[in-house]
Amino acid sequence: MIKNTTIAAISTAPGVGGIAVVRVSGPDAIEKVNAVFQPVRKDVSLLEQPGNTVLFGTLIQSGGEVLDEVLVSVFRAPHSFTGEDTVEISCHGSLYVQQQTLKLLLAQGCVLAQPGEFSQRAFLNGKMDLSQAEAIADLIASTSTASHRMALNQMRGRFSNELMMLREKLLHFVSLIELELDFNEEDVEFADRTELKRLAQEIEEKIARLADSFALGNVLKNGIPVALVGETNVGKSTLLNVLLNEEKAIVSDVHGTTRDVIEDCVNIGGVTFRFIDTAGIRETKDTVENMGIERTYQKIEQASIVLWLVDCTQISEHIEWLTERIARRAEGKKIILVFNKVDKVDKDECSVIDELFASFDAERIYISAKERINTDELQRSLLEAAQLPTLQLGDVVVSNMRHYEALTSALAAIRRVLEGIDMQISHDFLSQDIRECMHFLGLITGAITTDEILGSIFSRFCIGK
Amino acid sequence: MIKNTTIAAISTAPGVGGIAVVRVSGPDAIEKVNAVFQPVRKDVSLLEQPGNTVLFGTLIQSGGEVLDEVLVSVFRAPHSFTGEDTVEISCHGSLYVQQQTLKLLLAQGCVLAQPGEFSQRAFLNGKMDLSQAEAIADLIASTSTASHRMALNQMRGRFSNELMMLREKLLHFVSLIELELDFNEEDVEFADRTELKRLAQEIEEKIARLADSFALGNVLKNGIPVALVGETNVGKSTLLNVLLNEEKAIVSDVHGTTRDVIEDCVNIGGVTFRFIDTAGIRETKDTVENMGIERTYQKIEQASIVLWLVDCTQISEHIEWLTERIARRAEGKKIILVFNKVDKVDKDECSVIDELFASFDAERIYISAKERINTDELQRSLLEAAQLPTLQLGDVVVSNMRHYEALTSALAAIRRVLEGIDMQISHDFLSQDIRECMHFLGLITGAITTDEILGSIFSRFCIGK
Repeated sequence: MIKNTTIAAISTAPGVGGIAVVRVSGPDAIEKVNAVFQPVRKDVSLLEQPGNTVLFGTLIQSGGEVLDEVLVSVFRAPHSFTGEDTVEISCHGSLYVQQQTLKLLLAQGCVLAQPGEFSQRAFLNGKMDLSQAEAIADLIASTSTASHRMALNQMRGRFSNELMMLREKLLHFVSLIELELDFNEEDVEFADRTELKRLAQEIEEKIARLADSFALGNVLKNGIPVALVGETNVGKSTLLNVLLNEEKAIVSDVHGTTRDVIEDCVNIGGVTFRFIDTAGIRETKDTVENMGIERTYQKIEQASIVLWLVDCTQISEHIEWLTERIARRAEGKKIILVFNKVDKVDKDECSVIDELFASFDAERIYISAKERINTDELQRSLLEAAQLPTLQLGDVVVSNMRHYEALTSALAAIRRVLEGIDMQISHDFLSQDIRECMHFLGLITGAITTDEILGSIFSRFCIGK
Repeated sequence: MIKNTTIAAISTAPGVGGIAVVRVSGPDAIEKVNAVFQPVRKDVSLLEQPGNTVLFGTLIQSGGEVLDEVLVSVFRAPHSFTGEDTVEISCHGSLYVQQQTLKLLLAQGCVLAQPGEFSQRAFLNGKMDLSQAEAIADLIASTSTASHRMALNQMRGRFSNELMMLREKLLHFVSLIELELDFNEEDVEFADRTELKRLAQEIEEKIARLADSFALGNVLKNGIPVALVGETNVGKSTLLNVLLNEEKAIVSDVHGTTRDVIEDCVNIGGVTFRFIDTAGIRETKDTVENMGIERTYQKIEQASIVLWLVDCTQISEHIEWLTERIARRAEGKKIILVFNKVDKVDKDECSVIDELFASFDAERIYISAKERINTDELQRSLLEAAQLPTLQLGDVVVSNMRHYEALTSALAAIRRVLEGIDMQISHDFLSQDIRECMHFLGLITGAITTDEILGSIFSRFCIGK
């Protein structure tokens, strides 16, 4: 265990802000902060401060110089995030003050926290299980309502509670079966096979459902892939900007920054759509083969929705040829035909274009990206095309590849258990399969871990969390 | 006054971090946060929470859905930064959570805080004077020990205490003089002119000293301008990178980011040096006039130190011509001749180069930027060349242009007072000059303000402070 050290890190976003928070956790957290902190009120001491209180005072550098005026929050073990004594120093948000505050603490013998080390300690101290700790990283990275809700549900333990209950039931059975082994020659059956089978079926069903949810979880976490197909100059980037800007406007309204919006990812109705650039179709004098259609094909294959943008004012001579090929490659995918620049044409011209696509089985939307005509209808269509089940409060959705892999293995094991019961295999084989299923469920919650697993999980965290 | 509203803003740096802090201040701060917050402990209520305590709980969205698990710190008026009831919500640092938390509060009727509005309220509620509030912005922007120390001294009120004392003494005298006006015909003198003169001299001296300190303050705040002169390929950018990287290494060690280091500004020994790019000298086949020397001249004029970088391995044919001209333009400035790439030449070659510059009166340093030979000696030379008085603990240095202008006007007024005493001008003129001096001193501390002044000061703050 690593609990002997006291760790420190800047926990707020890197950069300059109004305030920044430096977090200190470990057995000597309060003593070490006390050594560099002087409360303004002379009649109080940080050392005697009860948990969950805040003191105002100054940080003192070596030589007695004041570094900053700060608020210091004290949390006493086990009533803290990490389960250890923890102090949060809220200082002014200049880079200089942040750095110097951290240096002061390091000089006192604090150790710079590794990425995710606060969460790791919370896990090691039993404040949360492994999947809950992992959800914190997902929560911090989440950019949409859906991915946020998934991560929060996981952090609040809904996922692991379910798994732990299943695991405990298995444990009950496996101990009975292993007891049978001791009475091997007497042919007793402590574990009711019918009941075990019912439990195994229930577990199989639940694990299968969780593993199945990964497809949705993955899409919610990483965005629904949308191929934006179209010839050059039909307005692809204008459309993308319109969709992006509406989101950006919200971001910058409330935060004053747009720097962290991921390019080409657009939040619509709480769901992330990931636009795949297919800037491949370019009209040339040569054969149609030269139009980069092959590259576009590949992009279409990665997508679950194909947005085909057509310029109403300019009908390409290749439309028919393209229509046929794109339709073939996009089979099974949702296609939306988007006619752009409708403000520039009249109704008759519109019908001419419509007819060109008569053979093409797809939803049609008429927009002007530039004038923002019907762009919200397009957003609605995208949401509909995503065909996402509405995530309910408390729905458990697996979005973590590690969990998915463990669930798949647990599923294989529990299916072997079911088979084994039917085939009346020997106690020890049955017990081995049950133990294996338990092992994989335990990997998810962290009931079973190795340093290697922990290392690889927490290294993906940001420092300070 | 604006105190009827309750304001909210994200106070930590924009972007994704482990945690973020949303600050709420105003008469209904506690009620408004209480409406969206549910403590984990069922026996407590945010409304009854004493000041300076922290509660753990969840933020609840409309519909009852949990948004996040948060820590909520309560500060009760007047014991808060703003002097109002204040709540700080420490939430998970995803952009999504930050935005939604703010939206939740706005939906409760909180108003999005203007830049600097928390500090402005602190000023309006008498928690600090204007120059102290201004120092907060400087403190947050400070990137070196020196600029940090200046801002902190100002924030802790050393500057304004001094000014307020002077102003009070003036007030004492001006009231006596104005009393004399009431007894105009009786020719009484309540205000002892000798004492007034002594005071005016003392004030004149102090204001002059403060105004003089602006030159230093400005340089400490904005960096000491250094012109890095040299022909192409002598290693200017390598040298700059070496100086920058040593600093960046420290920054990234303790923070995991280097994104906020200002390009071409280097901290050496706690002082910022601002390197002025003079990438103008390029050898051509044409006349020497073509070498962009005129542009370099202009840059030299902006600098207080000229670093002339020479490549030991390649002696330019223009050296003599350049030497003469640069020396002429850099008169009165500190010049440091830096011979780079010394690792590539032997001693004899070095002396040849030395002789080329024999007529040139400047400090000489032999370095290899690439191999980091003697680069720390160069740093020492730069610090020495800066000729900065060491800023002592508590030294008052003016670094704010607004303060400097007010001090200059106050100085002119107090000098008129001195003149007036000597010339025995009438009571009312004397009193007018004293009042004017008091006015300008009052502008600095905020004893006298207008909405316009306040607006222009606080709009330069970041949001959330």
